[in-house]
Amino acid sequence: MRFVDLNLRGAGQVMFMNNPVTGLLILAAICWGTIRADMPQVAIGAVVGLVVGTLAAMALHVHRDSLRQGMFGFSPLLTGAAVPTFLDHSAWMWAYLVIGAATTTVVTLAVSKVFTTWGVPALTFPFVLTSWLLMLGAYQLHKIRISTLAAPMLPQAIGTTSFDVSLTNLITAMLRGVSQVFLIGDWVSGLIILLALAVNSRWAAALAVAATVIATLLAIALGAPATSIDAGLYGFSAVLTAIALGCVFNNPHSRGLLYALLGTVFTVVIQAALNTALSPIGIPTFTAPFVFATWLFLLPKADLVPTPHHQPIADGIVAGHEA
Amino acid sequence: MRFVDLNLRGAGQVMFMNNPVTGLLILAAICWGTIRADMPQVAIGAVVGLVVGTLAAMALHVHRDSLRQGMFGFSPLLTGAAVPTFLDHSAWMWAYLVIGAATTTVVTLAVSKVFTTWGVPALTFPFVLTSWLLMLGAYQLHKIRISTLAAPMLPQAIGTTSFDVSLTNLITAMLRGVSQVFLIGDWVSGLIILLALAVNSRWAAALAVAATVIATLLAIALGAPATSIDAGLYGFSAVLTAIALGCVFNNPHSRGLLYALLGTVFTVVIQAALNTALSPIGIPTFTAPFVFATWLFLLPKADLVPTPHHQPIADGIVAGHEA
Amino acid sequence: MRFVDLNLRGAGQVMFMNNPVTGLLILAAICWGTIRADMPQVAIGAVVGLVVGTLAAMALHVHRDSLRQGMFGFSPLLTGAAVPTFLDHSAWMWAYLVIGAATTTVVTLAVSKVFTTWGVPALTFPFVLTSWLLMLGAYQLHKIRISTLAAPMLPQAIGTTSFDVSLTNLITAMLRGVSQVFLIGDWVSGLIILLALAVNSRWAAALAVAATVIATLLAIALGAPATSIDAGLYGFSAVLTAIALGCVFNNPHSRGLLYALLGTVFTVVIQAALNTALSPIGIPTFTAPFVFATWLFLLPKADLVPTPHHQPIADGIVAGHEA
Repeated sequence: MRFVDLNLRGAGQVMFMNNPVTGLLILAAICWGTIRADMPQVAIGAVVGLVVGTLAAMALHVHRDSLRQGMFGFSPLLTGAAVPTFLDHSAWMWAYLVIGAATTTVVTLAVSKVFTTWGVPALTFPFVLTSWLLMLGAYQLHKIRISTLAAPMLPQAIGTTSFDVSLTNLITAMLRGVSQVFLIGDWVSGLIILLALAVNSRWAAALAVAATVIATLLAIALGAPATSIDAGLYGFSAVLTAIALGCVFNNPHSRGLLYALLGTVFTVVIQAALNTALSPIGIPTFTAPFVFATWLFLLPKADLVPTPHHQPIADGIVAGHEA
Repeated sequence: MRFVDLNLRGAGQVMFMNNPVTGLLILAAICWGTIRADMPQVAIGAVVGLVVGTLAAMALHVHRDSLRQGMFGFSPLLTGAAVPTFLDHSAWMWAYLVIGAATTTVVTLAVSKVFTTWGVPALTFPFVLTSWLLMLGAYQLHKIRISTLAAPMLPQAIGTTSFDVSLTNLITAMLRGVSQVFLIGDWVSGLIILLALAVNSRWAAALAVAATVIATLLAIALGAPATSIDAGLYGFSAVLTAIALGCVFNNPHSRGLLYALLGTVFTVVIQAALNTALSPIGIPTFTAPFVFATWLFLLPKADLVPTPHHQPIADGIVAGHEA
Repeated sequence: MRFVDLNLRGAGQVMFMNNPVTGLLILAAICWGTIRADMPQVAIGAVVGLVVGTLAAMALHVHRDSLRQGMFGFSPLLTGAAVPTFLDHSAWMWAYLVIGAATTTVVTLAVSKVFTTWGVPALTFPFVLTSWLLMLGAYQLHKIRISTLAAPMLPQAIGTTSFDVSLTNLITAMLRGVSQVFLIGDWVSGLIILLALAVNSRWAAALAVAATVIATLLAIALGAPATSIDAGLYGFSAVLTAIALGCVFNNPHSRGLLYALLGTVFTVVIQAALNTALSPIGIPTFTAPFVFATWLFLLPKADLVPTPHHQPIADGIVAGHEA
């Protein structure tokens, strides 16, 4: 029972929510989106990743409180979702996923150890790093087939691109911006995830909405590729940055929110930049734009912060705020 | 008045000179070079970057002494110069520049926080990192048009290339090596910058001359592309490395100078290396060769140094030496 | 005499063996392999690199005990072997090699300074970083000619590839996996290196054998390119990871060995991943897969370890275990 609870919290912690109900709703959103896209293996992969990562953490005798709060579930969950999203279904793929999920837990400990030096959490970087390696490796391994990774190409300055700005298009794109946190482009899933946030923190839900609105409009204004905007690919990292800077590691208040706004806007720039930088090696950014922006904006420990919600915990694993 | 003073010091700090007269002469060199090249927007961008970066630092309540010494001006100045050098003039470009300059200040705090762990300064890396992201982002954003970035291409071993070794060619190439610190290829600007250095530190001026001579001759000897040598692109990072290692973070003396020589020579190798490494993603090295070489040669804290000029200051922002 | 001893220990330390006899046997293996491949300049380069690097360390007054244990010899030795392996023989190449070897020592101090923060050694990363820069630089320098670097290309998912699984093929590929630690593809050299290990530590020899067997079989199972497997290119990093995790930084025992097994398996994934990631810039991975895997698996300081063999030494240079 406790094992189920900490796994559900793990699902919630992808969005900094230490709350099993939030986690359950997020898993529901993942199931909905992957079934609608006819890719149920992604939902299964996410759950397998979550459980394997958590078990690996137990085997490594990690810090108990961090484990209970789900801090070892969220990155492996994402690794587990990424593998069947981009690689072909096969027995070897599942073995690859299990090894990747267990390694994500090791990487979580490693990255946390490094960043605790500066009082900054690992965020989802363990997922990003491990999954980048798994994707890059697949190019060299015939038994691990690539399904949907974009073919490696040299970047080119893009031409005009017109996003069809109707209210429906805008709203669905913005909601897909929320669901893409979990590699899902489905507006209903986005709605369920907003609900999952609201259950635990209305600030988090409000910041998520604000961030996806701002990021989507900014991407349209700057002329980012319409298909990417429509798929929500300019929203998800901004959503995570806004929650992290706006209400998780700072208390929400006027100067802090202005700072979070700059961080959210720059996340859009980093999203575009990493799309370019990773283009020759054919891998997606995952949540790296969020991770890099949030690190850059958390490290200064700018004097904006009355009291942080988060309590640092042993070994650099930073705890989410309690439900 | 104090605001003007600290901005002028900010301009001087690009070359480690905490001196408003040096800063003024450097701004004059930038104006001369950009007007001669018919690109006045670059000088305007540099000043806007300097002022925006400094204002952002004030808004973030940074350490007062660091601010007064111009430690928050130099990286945003360079970001402000880089954007209109490589991107097309437009209203969106100016918005991009302002966001970039403000973010450069945040990144300065972040990078300084990390590197203070090892007693090493951020140098111009906040400029390099932020500007790389801005350039890479431009490829995906139709409203931010690329003007002069080299097209992304796979590296190829270069063929013979003949630099026309006349005394005039050599001297102008070497002086352009100095001016390229500010992304300007103009030998008169190079001369003014040497004067600006001499006003504050004859050692710095002498090391700058020595470095651009050594780097240019070495690049010719090793057969680097003649057009790059001629434009001063093999000189500027070496100039900064030599000043940093030779007289800023060490006192100039025999063993230290030998060490600085190795660092300067290896800066030429890193310059060539990064030209290759960045070729597939179509962005310039900026001052990264200087930053990486200087970090590698400062980190050992080799036992070469009687007394460093520099006083470390709170938050890892290292102060320049006083005028 | 002491100078010879510490250079021999330096050769042994490539594989963590602080033992002059091991070093001597390793040099013999290098000589055998390079003469058989008609590339004696590689053996000469290795010795020049070893001596130059050690002399540079002396000139920089590094920590005496670390110097005596050969901790400043192994990375420059590898740099000295890499340069004539991939670049054409010429006077400039030898100057390049000497500068590279001396710089490798500076980089060893720099990287050690950084990683000592987390109680983790620099491993062979100083070699990897310096040699990557030297290789990348060569593309821009006409006088430093590239001989055997793979041409830069965009990665492509590989097709079927069939490794001819006979016992002879398997065993020679596995032994070449051991010799490739020194950039040599020669099964006899591999045998001599295993002997060199056994002289100092039977655990190290046993783990090397286990690792090259596991890595080779796994690479075959996953469908990695047959020519790479045959050349031993999937074995060498795994060998180093297994020794490092299995018996150098942990005592060999059941849970630790299971952890080392996961690290070794993931080294194969990182090897494939870096082959892809470096493909557009045309440089080899060197021992980076070992370095990255070992860092990721050492940083957690997982609670697996009764007593580590290694004593940390001043300045972050971690000593090898005594013969």
